[in-house]
Amino acid sequence: MTSNAIAHSKSATSAEQRLAIQFCQVRAFSEAIAAPLAAEDCVIQSMPDVSPTRWHLAHTTWFFETFFLKHKPGYEPFNSEFDYLFNSYYNTLGEQFPRAKRGLLSRPTVTEVLQYRKYVDECVLHCLESANLSLQGMAVIEIGLNHEQQHQELMLTDIKHVLSCNPLFPVYAKTELPVASVPEPAEFVAFDEGLYEIGHAGKGFAYDNESPRHQIFLDAFALSNRLVTVREYLEFMDDGGYRKPDCWLAMGWQSAAEEGWAAPLYWHNKDGKWFHFTLSGLHPIDLDAPVCHVSYFEADAFARWAGARLPSEAEWEIASTNIPEQGNFADQFFASERTVQPAAPEPTEPIGSGTTSLRQMFGDAWEWTYSPYMPYPGYAPAEGALGEYNGKFMCGQFVLRGGSCATPSGHIRRSYRNFFPPSARWQFSGIRLARN
Amino acid sequence: MTSNAIAHSKSATSAEQRLAIQFCQVRAFSEAIAAPLAAEDCVIQSMPDVSPTRWHLAHTTWFFETFFLKHKPGYEPFNSEFDYLFNSYYNTLGEQFPRAKRGLLSRPTVTEVLQYRKYVDECVLHCLESANLSLQGMAVIEIGLNHEQQHQELMLTDIKHVLSCNPLFPVYAKTELPVASVPEPAEFVAFDEGLYEIGHAGKGFAYDNESPRHQIFLDAFALSNRLVTVREYLEFMDDGGYRKPDCWLAMGWQSAAEEGWAAPLYWHNKDGKWFHFTLSGLHPIDLDAPVCHVSYFEADAFARWAGARLPSEAEWEIASTNIPEQGNFADQFFASERTVQPAAPEPTEPIGSGTTSLRQMFGDAWEWTYSPYMPYPGYAPAEGALGEYNGKFMCGQFVLRGGSCATPSGHIRRSYRNFFPPSARWQFSGIRLARN
Amino acid sequence: MTSNAIAHSKSATSAEQRLAIQFCQVRAFSEAIAAPLAAEDCVIQSMPDVSPTRWHLAHTTWFFETFFLKHKPGYEPFNSEFDYLFNSYYNTLGEQFPRAKRGLLSRPTVTEVLQYRKYVDECVLHCLESANLSLQGMAVIEIGLNHEQQHQELMLTDIKHVLSCNPLFPVYAKTELPVASVPEPAEFVAFDEGLYEIGHAGKGFAYDNESPRHQIFLDAFALSNRLVTVREYLEFMDDGGYRKPDCWLAMGWQSAAEEGWAAPLYWHNKDGKWFHFTLSGLHPIDLDAPVCHVSYFEADAFARWAGARLPSEAEWEIASTNIPEQGNFADQFFASERTVQPAAPEPTEPIGSGTTSLRQMFGDAWEWTYSPYMPYPGYAPAEGALGEYNGKFMCGQFVLRGGSCATPSGHIRRSYRNFFPPSARWQFSGIRLARN
Amino acid sequence: MTSNAIAHSKSATSAEQRLAIQFCQVRAFSEAIAAPLAAEDCVIQSMPDVSPTRWHLAHTTWFFETFFLKHKPGYEPFNSEFDYLFNSYYNTLGEQFPRAKRGLLSRPTVTEVLQYRKYVDECVLHCLESANLSLQGMAVIEIGLNHEQQHQELMLTDIKHVLSCNPLFPVYAKTELPVASVPEPAEFVAFDEGLYEIGHAGKGFAYDNESPRHQIFLDAFALSNRLVTVREYLEFMDDGGYRKPDCWLAMGWQSAAEEGWAAPLYWHNKDGKWFHFTLSGLHPIDLDAPVCHVSYFEADAFARWAGARLPSEAEWEIASTNIPEQGNFADQFFASERTVQPAAPEPTEPIGSGTTSLRQMFGDAWEWTYSPYMPYPGYAPAEGALGEYNGKFMCGQFVLRGGSCATPSGHIRRSYRNFFPPSARWQFSGIRLARN
Repeated sequence: MTSNAIAHSKSATSAEQRLAIQFCQVRAFSEAIAAPLAAEDCVIQSMPDVSPTRWHLAHTTWFFETFFLKHKPGYEPFNSEFDYLFNSYYNTLGEQFPRAKRGLLSRPTVTEVLQYRKYVDECVLHCLESANLSLQGMAVIEIGLNHEQQHQELMLTDIKHVLSCNPLFPVYAKTELPVASVPEPAEFVAFDEGLYEIGHAGKGFAYDNESPRHQIFLDAFALSNRLVTVREYLEFMDDGGYRKPDCWLAMGWQSAAEEGWAAPLYWHNKDGKWFHFTLSGLHPIDLDAPVCHVSYFEADAFARWAGARLPSEAEWEIASTNIPEQGNFADQFFASERTVQPAAPEPTEPIGSGTTSLRQMFGDAWEWTYSPYMPYPGYAPAEGALGEYNGKFMCGQFVLRGGSCATPSGHIRRSYRNFFPPSARWQFSGIRLARN
Repeated sequence: MTSNAIAHSKSATSAEQRLAIQFCQVRAFSEAIAAPLAAEDCVIQSMPDVSPTRWHLAHTTWFFETFFLKHKPGYEPFNSEFDYLFNSYYNTLGEQFPRAKRGLLSRPTVTEVLQYRKYVDECVLHCLESANLSLQGMAVIEIGLNHEQQHQELMLTDIKHVLSCNPLFPVYAKTELPVASVPEPAEFVAFDEGLYEIGHAGKGFAYDNESPRHQIFLDAFALSNRLVTVREYLEFMDDGGYRKPDCWLAMGWQSAAEEGWAAPLYWHNKDGKWFHFTLSGLHPIDLDAPVCHVSYFEADAFARWAGARLPSEAEWEIASTNIPEQGNFADQFFASERTVQPAAPEPTEPIGSGTTSLRQMFGDAWEWTYSPYMPYPGYAPAEGALGEYNGKFMCGQFVLRGGSCATPSGHIRRSYRNFFPPSARWQFSGIRLARN
Repeated sequence: MTSNAIAHSKSATSAEQRLAIQFCQVRAFSEAIAAPLAAEDCVIQSMPDVSPTRWHLAHTTWFFETFFLKHKPGYEPFNSEFDYLFNSYYNTLGEQFPRAKRGLLSRPTVTEVLQYRKYVDECVLHCLESANLSLQGMAVIEIGLNHEQQHQELMLTDIKHVLSCNPLFPVYAKTELPVASVPEPAEFVAFDEGLYEIGHAGKGFAYDNESPRHQIFLDAFALSNRLVTVREYLEFMDDGGYRKPDCWLAMGWQSAAEEGWAAPLYWHNKDGKWFHFTLSGLHPIDLDAPVCHVSYFEADAFARWAGARLPSEAEWEIASTNIPEQGNFADQFFASERTVQPAAPEPTEPIGSGTTSLRQMFGDAWEWTYSPYMPYPGYAPAEGALGEYNGKFMCGQFVLRGGSCATPSGHIRRSYRNFFPPSARWQFSGIRLARN
Repeated sequence: MTSNAIAHSKSATSAEQRLAIQFCQVRAFSEAIAAPLAAEDCVIQSMPDVSPTRWHLAHTTWFFETFFLKHKPGYEPFNSEFDYLFNSYYNTLGEQFPRAKRGLLSRPTVTEVLQYRKYVDECVLHCLESANLSLQGMAVIEIGLNHEQQHQELMLTDIKHVLSCNPLFPVYAKTELPVASVPEPAEFVAFDEGLYEIGHAGKGFAYDNESPRHQIFLDAFALSNRLVTVREYLEFMDDGGYRKPDCWLAMGWQSAAEEGWAAPLYWHNKDGKWFHFTLSGLHPIDLDAPVCHVSYFEADAFARWAGARLPSEAEWEIASTNIPEQGNFADQFFASERTVQPAAPEPTEPIGSGTTSLRQMFGDAWEWTYSPYMPYPGYAPAEGALGEYNGKFMCGQFVLRGGSCATPSGHIRRSYRNFFPPSARWQFSGIRLARN
């Protein structure tokens, strides 16, 4: 999880200055995400996987306090009881307030949490200004910023889930939905069999779970040139896809039954017409937009119904090789005052061939792969408490690739491995088909 | 649930004026209870039995809107979707938002709920000023005010529970705890066997469950002259009372095991010393105060351990016959800026004999009786939706008598039947012993 | 729970002889109930309330061993580990194998349990033959026999439940269903208000919960002359009774929803026709038979729908005053090789007036009363472990009166208080209406 | 899942004769496994994963009836209701009796199930004798026999679990435990990195999930020469391994807490000494035997504690390349009247080098790999209902390799992929360490 980028910057001073600027930007964006909310909105935990906004704001702050500031001599913690309240899951650091009960807490209030942020921000910036920061210290801040960007995405997805539970369908922000254009016809782009390399390369930041870079043999495969659309998913639904056991994994069939799935999360049928809940309220579905808020089980069932399969994470990474890490990311939506929501691609250029014809690889919607989230060969977690960041979750989850419309643009990489349990639906998770 | 008091007031006009004043007072007290809270506090539902403060504020308002204003021609509802959100359990009026999920809602916000209250208050007062209100209309307002007073007690007990879940032990209001004095020695006051009458008498307001007044035969019995103290309850605990199965009902033994009861709710042991959480934060227990926040099961076990039993509700009512309905009630605590919490009695007068020597019968702590909450002989629920107010809960609950420190002083009666399941502990519920 | 009957028998010797004969009869009847079963049937616990037949056979034996034989010098227990396995709920005697897990045990096998029974029977009979038994010892055997008779009824109801879970609808015994005759028209028999006495009287055996006999004041009331029939219950169903919230207690409404009640337990609808599962397999319902296998909640809802109410246990006991304790009991069904199942009354005599016109008071179906199961005034449980027999269950249950077709004929009394939770349906429980 | 072996046998007649002999042998072994049990033992389902013995005996019979006999003209099913009762999970064939409720059924009895077996056996053998069986028909019988062998292992593990729930610790069969000898010192055997092939090869029978054979790139790795012993596992326990969160996956830590794991399943501590429950009752643990009845989570935690890791299934398969598929299998234990239980290896020969020094690769205990159970590249499930056999379970489970002491010796292969959820402990599952 360390970054040689910092070490190789031309002068220590300028590296710290750049980090200070980045720190201010990232920290400010978290508060910008919370800004449209009422205090009441920031308290609610609508299911165990969701955390209240005030918790996200405080936990990301606790992260800098715990892994950076507490190692500075003379640092006075803002409130020593916050260790128990805002430690997420670092057993090495002591007991934690139970995750499923985060929604029982109203204090510290949002205002108090913002004071906590201000206090910690000033202390961190003071350290960054004092110019003689160790490489390790700077690496921890870099991790802290990546950590906070992860939580920025979660803040957006968690707020969406919280508001969605209210029959009033509250609007997070009155913004325009992204304009949809007609997507290109779906085509499969072929790749040869061969011995490839995947995993993080180069000097930039990456999490420990993206390493080590390693060889892998792939059979020939093909990926669809774009994401599955709402229109295509409706065909699956209209064909009884949710009621065909032979399309489904046994666990998925059971989840669908227990939770009554008959459409993606956030879809509502009113008098025969489909609407979906978005961060700007309830709207008719957009047939040309990529389908999202589907579980791995639904993605897998759709793929089987369509005579295809999901990609593996290695296939996805190899296919993405020459594609720039650009797309529709959260901060762009904020900057243009549009609703954070995937849209049809803008067909600004003629479709290429091979890799260059792959669209929507970055941003829009996380793409479920059929790869269980497991360590790469030779994986070693970071030392100390930060070693709990990734490794201990390598069981029972699947890898998603590419980032979504809720991911901050600085927080996505070709080698980035997102992971969620196969029943998770509240992320902006969509489908790209693959086949042999 | 009707009140002849209104009908018999000297002039219709003055009755309406009096009702308007009472209306303003009661409605204002609800808001006074909520005033010390942050918006974040008002959202949380810490267990299914607890409702968020913003829900209480809105539901009591919906009650007036639904049962009174909607029968007025030309009334425009504040928001027609509130019917679904703020109907508590009146099936006759339509479906309700699930009770256990009230804590998932952040909207309408507290500010919006206060606007809703203002809107409804003005409409109600306008009707009361227009002077030609029917007796039935006035009776509905009277019920609405009694209903709101019930919820005022629940607001206090629910807030206490919400804040108690926070390891920071937040303070609702920084106020003085009531001063305790040494209680009198416990003595049993005897009553003869005989054919008595219980149930609501006279022309004042009462709920339908207090009627009809009826005859009942009682064996000779005796009631303790005061409530069980914290000191006495500690003796039970120190004697292993929580670990003696022969003291407990089978269901109570199971509840205690499942929920890990080893002391009253809100008690915390720190390094061998007992503290309890109050509305002014964590404090050392007061040995002379009445024990409270015990379940029926604990009250029953304590009584068995003490060689006594709990009173029946009829015994309690007969014993209270000549005692004025005065005590330590919620509004008095507010008026004197003291913490709502039971205290030892002020021994201002020499102890009398017979009934007159019974202390703490009204206010301080609700007294568990061993009477299951069942209809009185000949009981008939009110007509229409209001018939759902009491009757349908007559199963699986026990009657408590006398009111508590969280009861508004206008809302207690000799014949008042409060009721809770035997495992409930979050009300200010205490113990008075009885024997044959 | 003591019986003066034994003490007053003419000579000690003959009392013991009579007890020995009774002992042999009761013990043999338990084995007769088990006789038609395969070993496989005797192991299953189809829900936590149900116990496997092999457990009943062993537990009733353990009762004699524990409360009688272990006090005899030199007694060698059959297997000391059975204390843990076959103690039901006597905490005073030590820990118990968890009730809900009785269906996980296959050993001791049925054959081994029958050996256990033989061993204990011989020891008990040997004591009874030795002629100098204390009155207390004889009282314990009398309790043990009553205890076993209670379990005989449970064996029948539990077997019925076990077999009912099998889609093959296995037949317990191929016997004739009781012949139904057309019931008399339903009429209410009136009783005056007054101060009455209820509770066990006289010298015969009774459980501690039937005492002390005490005075009670009753308002004027009326009881229906017979049980509610299947035909009448179908009218309730056809009128949407299960879907009318205003007929139901809140807890009952919730139970019905959670468990999907739409008819009495054991009813099956095949192509629009109603069948019910009986101990002789699946049969069309008998419109003239008393409805049974209904919960308190259903009985209460039916009564409200019918414009009536359930009786109190005191009303039932007073009304039964002059009616002989005769009816259709389990052993009579066995003797005549008919299926244990309630039948319409045989109208052998002209209907009388007053009490004498009440039919079906004893046997056929237990009659739900609206009386919560609570101690009588002055109730004191027996000393020692036997004190756990009744008292500790006095919470959350309702009293049923009169005995059923599954009750052994020696095991019913005017003052007998059976009790079950209000959601219980697997007993032969029916409905008699009352009103003021 | 088809087998060319049948097609290539010299003459159709002799292939059918051989199949008939195999059929008789396999079918007889199932009944031999059930023979020591009482009827009562055969009914119990001690947890949802366990099936009663009578169910296994019937379900394996239903398999032949459904997939083979029903396609023969004129076949009369033994009992048409068995389709619902004994279909395990084939949605294509219709609804199934709920898996978790198999322990509620006592009928058909064991005797009746044996009659069912006899009926089906005679029909199948009659077909095999009639000599003109299609290759497809013979393939189905071959699958059915493999299917039954799978269930033979489950019968043994399920019986062990059922009996283990009984505090009497019943003995399945009074047999000698296998003799343990001192195991060799643990050493890691190294393998080079390279492009390998795994998956089923050749003409013999294999399940669809073992195909297609495919290339895979492996980094250099090393496998331990033998299984982890009880002695080594005790060191982990004594070092507090169950209380060190940094050894555990997050899900494992949670499972261990929820289920109170502090030792392998079936271990009991009596006065400081460890015993384990076996099919011949409770015995002191054998320090030199391979540890078994551990979950994936425990295996993974042990490996991390030991500074190693679990192997991948590809590593295991490559390492097994030249090792004969021989070991301690269930039928050998039966033949020699020893208890089915893993034992220390018999050091009959000098330890070799490389692959040849790997011991205990087949039989003894299933070896947890860290490979999630997923389809091989290009995997296609079988057509029709048999396609539900394997594919739909490819989620949330881990692959185990090598077979155990409870596997029939004809039912293990180098390419065999067993799979269980990571919390499963009731199989004979052990640990082989690996490292890079």
